Amino acid sequence: MLSIEKYQKEFVAYLEQYSTLKEPKNLYEPIQYILGLGGKRLRPVLTLMTTEIFNSDYNKALDAALSIEVFHNFSLVHDDIMDDAPLRRGKETVHEKWDVNTGILSGDAMLIMAYQLFENYEASTFQSLAKLFSKTAIEVCEGQQYDVDFETRNDVTIPEYLKMIEYKTAVLVGAAMKMGAIVANASETDQNNIYEFGRNLGIAFQLQDDYLDAFGNPETFGKQVGGDIIENKKTYLYLKALAFSNDDNSSKLRNLFNTTLEDNDVKIHTVKEIFKISGASDATKKEIKNYTNKAFLVLESLDISDEKKALLRDFGNSLMNRKV
Amino acid sequence: MLSIEKYQKEFVAYLEQYSTLKEPKNLYEPIQYILGLGGKRLRPVLTLMTTEIFNSDYNKALDAALSIEVFHNFSLVHDDIMDDAPLRRGKETVHEKWDVNTGILSGDAMLIMAYQLFENYEASTFQSLAKLFSKTAIEVCEGQQYDVDFETRNDVTIPEYLKMIEYKTAVLVGAAMKMGAIVANASETDQNNIYEFGRNLGIAFQLQDDYLDAFGNPETFGKQVGGDIIENKKTYLYLKALAFSNDDNSSKLRNLFNTTLEDNDVKIHTVKEIFKISGASDATKKEIKNYTNKAFLVLESLDISDEKKALLRDFGNSLMNRKV
Repeated sequence: MLSIEKYQKEFVAYLEQYSTLKEPKNLYEPIQYILGLGGKRLRPVLTLMTTEIFNSDYNKALDAALSIEVFHNFSLVHDDIMDDAPLRRGKETVHEKWDVNTGILSGDAMLIMAYQLFENYEASTFQSLAKLFSKTAIEVCEGQQYDVDFETRNDVTIPEYLKMIEYKTAVLVGAAMKMGAIVANASETDQNNIYEFGRNLGIAFQLQDDYLDAFGNPETFGKQVGGDIIENKKTYLYLKALAFSNDDNSSKLRNLFNTTLEDNDVKIHTVKEIFKISGASDATKKEIKNYTNKAFLVLESLDISDEKKALLRDFGNSLMNRKV
Repeated sequence: MLSIEKYQKEFVAYLEQYSTLKEPKNLYEPIQYILGLGGKRLRPVLTLMTTEIFNSDYNKALDAALSIEVFHNFSLVHDDIMDDAPLRRGKETVHEKWDVNTGILSGDAMLIMAYQLFENYEASTFQSLAKLFSKTAIEVCEGQQYDVDFETRNDVTIPEYLKMIEYKTAVLVGAAMKMGAIVANASETDQNNIYEFGRNLGIAFQLQDDYLDAFGNPETFGKQVGGDIIENKKTYLYLKALAFSNDDNSSKLRNLFNTTLEDNDVKIHTVKEIFKISGASDATKKEIKNYTNKAFLVLESLDISDEKKALLRDFGNSLMNRKV
């Protein structure tokens, strides 16, 4: 088994030989650009690692891993248009560097290219991968739609929020791992269990994202701490704080999330205080632990060596202890 | 064998039972809406017809036909955003009735749903259909990109234009028919020949569209005659007229296509005169005939009865003699 860093390196090398420029340039240059922006390549690494976990050669999973990464980047390009985001990984977004139409069309092409990356697998593997891919991709679209809908709703419940992050983020982590298991010809039970491992870890990961956005250490976090608060994002922290607060703090929080300010320091400070004293901050940490434990529980039933289970557990713990 | 009208009816009945509304509503309602707007359903009808031409039950091809129609409507939704078009089939476009973000996301979901419609076929048929679909879909994106690029270019050549309409329109007609042949388990030679038949007919169809837009009978054409001229679209007629005209008429034409006017009657009249006297109008009619004949020539090599060949030829002729 390789280390995470080795899988990353192998994957990036494979990605680089894939990104050949074709005609028409205005369609393919943005694709080359977004795929080259970097990132942790977490999802494709999980695909490669899972294939080896199930005793097969990770090289066989490179196309499936690349498909997951191309799809992930497709969703970033289209989401950035919808969010009108100027920057992605510190660089201009595709629709900023080119224009909205280019972003739409290049994104469409990437979604198709993601399917094409399954074409070298034999027919039954192809069908399994493409079916899982479609189911996941539709759920990601539904998750994005719920996210958009929630922006203008004031009655979002915690279960609704959890479903949204599950669809928008977690199912792709589950699918990335299940694809590795499919390529390795793992049993259907193992395939479904590794999917559940990834899905639960994915939910924990996204809740951790919500938590770090407010309580991350500014020195190590990378992004601006409090970004979600500035943008009035109804995260898990916010919904829990509303549920736990007295009427006074509840309406204070609602009011703060109805304003857009020049100077956000006071707002961020006040909101974080309510997150803390309401118990929302502790509840979020508890929920992260909860989903991580769910993932670890599934691990037990996998038909793999204890050594490999420990490896997956270490990986899960490293994600949950991250600062970024 | 059924008649075209019967295939249309069968297809629309199948489409209606497919269009079930799911959550989230804001994602699926626009899909229901665009699929319900009507149209000739030409492409899915071709899929069903081709399956019967190759001696199989058209019912087996309903999912493939629906996939083609869902994809076609996906491309309309995204193209309408890019063209900022207010109307589609006389009704509001999706991004007008909802908004651009909804158009992007619902379109994305349709592209994925088109792939899902292959899932009921057994693995090797699934793979054949999905491969053909991806190749075609990418070409449609490339065709759309060329079309966008051509808007701001003044040196588009006739071969470039033909490639653009082949990709943007004709390959989907070819693919619709080839899918019918794949479902019917036709030989690879027959599959490729029926694709060529559809592709050539598709090019003829699009050239006919260019021709009718300028020279159609206003009483039967349905759309405004001269629409392409008003929008300064560099159609086959325009490119041929530039190639055939003396310097005087060439620069007149270029100037006319650099202006946007309040009253377009004089412009339309003048441009059509140049199309006629330059010989561009006749050359276009000749090219339509040329591609139709190419299609008919391919017919000869198909391993089907003469009766069925006659049927395909009649269908081709009816397309070429249409007024709308």
